This record gives sequence, C-alpha cells and structure tokens, in this order.
Amino acid sequence: MPDILPQTAAMLAIGDELLSGRTKDRNIGHLADVLTLAGIDLKEVRIVADEADAIASAINALRRSYTYVFTSGGIGPTHDDITADAVGQAFGLPVDYHPQAYERLAENYRARKLEFTEARKRMARTPTGAELIDNPVSVAPGFRVENVHVMAGVPSIFQAMLDNVMAGLPHGRAISSETLHCPFGEGEIGGPLADIQKRHPGVAIGSYPKYEGTYFHAEIVLRSRDAAALSAAKADVEEMLAQIVSSRPSA
Amino acid sequence: MPDILPQTAAMLAIGDELLSGRTKDRNIGHLADVLTLAGIDLKEVRIVADEADAIASAINALRRSYTYVFTSGGIGPTHDDITADAVGQAFGLPVDYHPQAYERLAENYRARKLEFTEARKRMARTPTGAELIDNPVSVAPGFRVENVHVMAGVPSIFQAMLDNVMAGLPHGRAISSETLHCPFGEGEIGGPLADIQKRHPGVAIGSYPKYEGTYFHAEIVLRSRDAAALSAAKADVEEMLAQIVSSRPSA
Repeated sequence: MPDILPQTAAMLAIGDELLSGRTKDRNIGHLADVLTLAGIDLKEVRIVADEADAIASAINALRRSYTYVFTSGGIGPTHDDITADAVGQAFGLPVDYHPQAYERLAENYRARKLEFTEARKRMARTPTGAELIDNPVSVAPGFRVENVHVMAGVPSIFQAMLDNVMAGLPHGRAISSETLHCPFGEGEIGGPLADIQKRHPGVAIGSYPKYEGTYFHAEIVLRSRDAAALSAAKADVEEMLAQIVSSRPSA
Repeated sequence: MPDILPQTAAMLAIGDELLSGRTKDRNIGHLADVLTLAGIDLKEVRIVADEADAIASAINALRRSYTYVFTSGGIGPTHDDITADAVGQAFGLPVDYHPQAYERLAENYRARKLEFTEARKRMARTPTGAELIDNPVSVAPGFRVENVHVMAGVPSIFQAMLDNVMAGLPHGRAISSETLHCPFGEGEIGGPLADIQKRHPGVAIGSYPKYEGTYFHAEIVLRSRDAAALSAAKADVEEMLAQIVSSRPSA
C-alpha cells in the first residue's frame, strides 16, 4: 500500500461491554467515515477494557505514533468510568475538577433541580490543563490533552463531540475513491491486479472479497489524492476486467 | 474491575477497508460473543491496515500478552493479502506453500475446471509448520502458529473457521451475568454502585448509559464465575435501586 497519506489518526475504544459482546461498537465505523472525508488517515484502532493500565499504555503507544488520537467511552459518573484518570496517568498529569466543566454541570443540575452528587461531579474531572470538548447533547464535556481527544461512548454524544473536534482540525486533501465491481473471485484477478498496483504507486488498490453463500465476487477499490493518477489506474483495472470477461467461454 | 478471568484472548482485525469506513467490521462482536460463552476473556482488540510491519508488530505484542490471538482478514489471493507473510515475519519463520493446503486447493480448482493460478496458490502459503484451520465454506484454509489463529475476514468464513477452532480449545468456566435496568441516569447511582463494587470484589459490575434523545437511563451488568457471589451482588444492587425509587417524590 503506497504511502500517500500525510495526517494520521488512531482510535481507542474503551469499555468492558465492547469486549464481552454485550455492546457492538458503533463509533469506530463512524470515526472512519468522518476522518476519510476530512482527508485524515485512520491507521489503527484498539479496544481495551475499563482498566487504567491498559488504557494508559494504549494512549501512550498511540499518541506517540499518530497525529491524532480519539477515544470513546469511560467518561460518565460511575466507578467504571476511569478514562480521565487513565489519561492523566498516561501524561503524568494530576486529575482534578476542571473549573468550566464543573460550573457547566453545576448550573445544569441546578436548573433541573437535581442534586449535584459526587458521582455527577466525577464528570467534571480532567487532567490539569485539558481543553474541553463541548457536549451539546447532555452537557458533560469531553476533553483534549495535546493530541488526544477524549469523548463519550454513547454514539449520539460521540458523534456530536466529534463534530465539534473536526471543526477545529486542519483537514487534509481528501482522498478520492473509485469502486469497480468484479463479477468473479479474486483468484482470477490477483496476478494482474498486483501488476497494476506496481505500475500505480500513488494509488492504493484494495480488493474486497464478497461471498453470500453462492459464489465469490469482489469489489476493487482505488484510492488516491491525485485525480489523474486515480483515473489512469482505474482505466487499467477496467481493461484488465474486460480482458478476463472476453477470454471466458460464453455461457 | 476484579480479576476473575483465567484464560485471555486478543483479536487483530486486518484490513484497510475497516479503517477507511468502507467496511464496518462484523467479526469483533461475533468473536466477543463466542469467547464469552466459552469462558475465555477477550481483553484487547486491534485493527490495523494491510501493512506487514503493522500486522507483525501487533501480533508480537498480542501473542506475548494473551493466551490466544485471533486474526481476521488478509488471507485471500490478491496483492493486499499479506497476513501470512506478516505472521511469518512476526515469528521469524519462512513462508511457503503448505503441502495439505496446496493439495486441497489444487483438487478444488481441478474439480471446478478452473486454472490454479499463481494468485490462487497464494492462499496455500503459511509460515512453516503451521497447522491448518479448515474452511468448510470455500476451501482455502486458515492456519495456526503457536497461539495465533489466522482466519478469513469474510464474516461467514470467519465464523465457520472460528467454530472449528473453538471445538479444539479448552473452555473456561463460563461467566454468568445479570442485567438490571436502572430507570434513571448514572449520576444517581454512581456513588452507591461504587460501594457495592467494593463489597463484591468477585463480581465485575459495569454500568452502561443509554440515551435515545429524551432521557438517560442505564443498564447495570453484573458478571461472575461464582453464582453465589453474583446473587449477593445482584440483591445489593436491587436494594439500592429500590431505595432511590422510594426516596423520590411521587409524580
């Protein structure tokens, strides 16, 4: 796969429920879609349990390797919400109530005539110096420390926070893609497709097998930031597919 | 989270398409469900691109930390299917045609009167000494090297291969779980739930917020291999929920 991608990102999804099968993650695919549109290349995803050491060591590995890190989960009010502490541990920063976060939450519970319990106050805790990520859905904010963006796990809140984050990031040149349907299995195209990839190093060519119980077919996806390179590679793949079709005995 | 889990596992999902958003993974949740039923604790998941170094270094990190590693993707016939080579790289093993895999594929294409192309032959390549994982769907096998189980990315094939692998693994004592619905947000229960977790170290208690656009509620999930401990913790959570309900002004 040619390296044509300037800004990189990683995601860390946090939560026992994702690893027990109880909750099926819906944030990874959404982040992937959003980053692709923004021209930022998602390079790695990890899912870890609600364990501080596991979270902290994953954050440290990812934040040093990629331009941006996005996390989901573990920022609510219960004892298993330990992401803020784990991020503090990763950065060697103390974790305390963030003044603006505390005030936003206090005001919200005052207005709703609900007690601002110790549990609810947990949602105001961040590593010292963190910048808040607004939560238009349910007030309790996410936060950013350096290149690590810490967001909620509930999909509607994750998505709203991500919208706020993306508005502030410099976008890369978006990748364009072309998808060609291949009506036969990958075994027929593997050799010629490898040759085409070699001739077009500025285009990432992927082949994705499909099987729904009767026969194999495939989708060939070409991706590039260079429109001319993409067109040239696409023409070569189309010609290759046409040659295979014409060489087959008719039914 | 108390450590009540003897056998551990990690998953590595491989493929550019998962990171671009083009394909939404369906194997992670399935593996999580199957392992939970088998009493094996999935502790970490990673998703990486079709890049040999990324795959090899993830495999080495995971195989040294967990009892089992399961991979999906990258074992087809096209140039971007490089999982076998990356696994060989991780283990320092040469990669070559596996005699039984080669024979199965040759026989299959012979019977179907299809050419056994160089691309198709790629699907017979494994690190030296690998044990095959049968593929009842489409012949081309997965393989195992030590504790690393290498399987296809197409969900129906991944699932069939996994069934074969699981039949041969020693199962742990299955975890039992109880789910209690909490009709109010986590802010109300965070404090008392943390106390209950402290009193029941043999039970993993998780709280999962739910929000569908109107109000927060939560599901409290208790998990343990010890039925008596699970019952005792469940009784405490039920009592805590009942107390909160009775302390509220009636509508």
